Amino acid sequence: MEVKVLTIQQDILGANEEKAKRNQELLDEHGILTVNIMSSPGAGKTSLILNTISKLRAEARIAVIEGDVASTVDADKVGKLGIPVVQINTPGGCHLDANMIENALNNLPLNDVDLLLIENVGNLICPVEFALGEHKKVMLLSLPEGDDKPYKYPLMFTEADVVLINKIDLLPYLDFNMTAFNSAVTGLNPAVKMYTISCKTGDGLEAWCSWVLAEIANRKSPHSPTT
Amino acid sequence: MEVKVLTIQQDILGANEEKAKRNQELLDEHGILTVNIMSSPGAGKTSLILNTISKLRAEARIAVIEGDVASTVDADKVGKLGIPVVQINTPGGCHLDANMIENALNNLPLNDVDLLLIENVGNLICPVEFALGEHKKVMLLSLPEGDDKPYKYPLMFTEADVVLINKIDLLPYLDFNMTAFNSAVTGLNPAVKMYTISCKTGDGLEAWCSWVLAEIANRKSPHSPTT
Repeated sequence: MEVKVLTIQQDILGANEEKAKRNQELLDEHGILTVNIMSSPGAGKTSLILNTISKLRAEARIAVIEGDVASTVDADKVGKLGIPVVQINTPGGCHLDANMIENALNNLPLNDVDLLLIENVGNLICPVEFALGEHKKVMLLSLPEGDDKPYKYPLMFTEADVVLINKIDLLPYLDFNMTAFNSAVTGLNPAVKMYTISCKTGDGLEAWCSWVLAEIANRKSPHSPTT
Repeated sequence: MEVKVLTIQQDILGANEEKAKRNQELLDEHGILTVNIMSSPGAGKTSLILNTISKLRAEARIAVIEGDVASTVDADKVGKLGIPVVQINTPGGCHLDANMIENALNNLPLNDVDLLLIENVGNLICPVEFALGEHKKVMLLSLPEGDDKPYKYPLMFTEADVVLINKIDLLPYLDFNMTAFNSAVTGLNPAVKMYTISCKTGDGLEAWCSWVLAEIANRKSPHSPTT
């Protein structure tokens, strides 16, 4: 039975990859930078999105897709800011996939969007295995999770374009070895960009937002790469 | 394709349930209380296990099964204490299953164990869907994850016998509404036991360990229920 499952799992991944490509083509036609934000539960994905909206909404037209097993708690927070948002619920499912994103894209005003932020389901394992059509993968680590996470969830750290280390305001109260963490991450992924941030105090968010703006500009340029 | 996957998923769950029952029969024959510990990445499962070993090793013979996507970081820590431990790596797999536990049980000295602590893969979604043969499910929430987790991951909170709220030492530095959290959890699961603990300061661990000892005693009693 296990072999059967493996085969079908591969079919799923292949079909997902195809659909993700079509999603990306659609996003490229509209010049929309799309960022897939992944983390453990409670690392601060929604806070990052709310802060990014607040800092960048004057410079970019933003839309959001929220993924959760249950509830519309996060989409409600985004919606209150007057930002177009779609909530995906995945009853029992532990990641978003390209099919869900295709449905969500059909419900967003793509002609009026420069930046699409996708909040994946809180999980450090499966979300990174399923392409959505995004241009960039952002991995958010919450400092209290500990500095050993790159050893335990290597694929997430290997595939991320950006690693954000959130809740840096808690550093004085934790045993977190930043040097060890940095060298573990860059060992897996030498090209990764890393920023330490606090969504509570606002520390470090300028650097993150500058990166986002530069990527939006790249995406709008006629010579930009599509991945 | 989605319907096919669903069918096979049900077969997997059914086959897993059967194997979990056989695991539990084996554990019952040996009078071993088995606890399945689940949480997000970095909530403190390994710290809880190390603290529990330290407090209870004079009163109970303990063994540990460690589940991780990769690495033997956690099993190494347990092994240093001279406690029998098996590391399960689930390359890419986001939860333990009964088959993995069966293999691990074959590698543990079951005649010399009163308490088996199983550390599941760090994930709030899939681990609770796969029975392992355990008698009790323990869900560990790290305070920095936030008080909204019961709404987002309801099954985990519904199925848990015990919810431990860890890192209580960080409470002064966080916006965590304990009253709202408690009422969300008991709304889903009125019979749940809840303890606030800190694996760093030791706060609350006595109450948790008393619960474990009482459950070991229940298990050894000839009139104890088997689930």
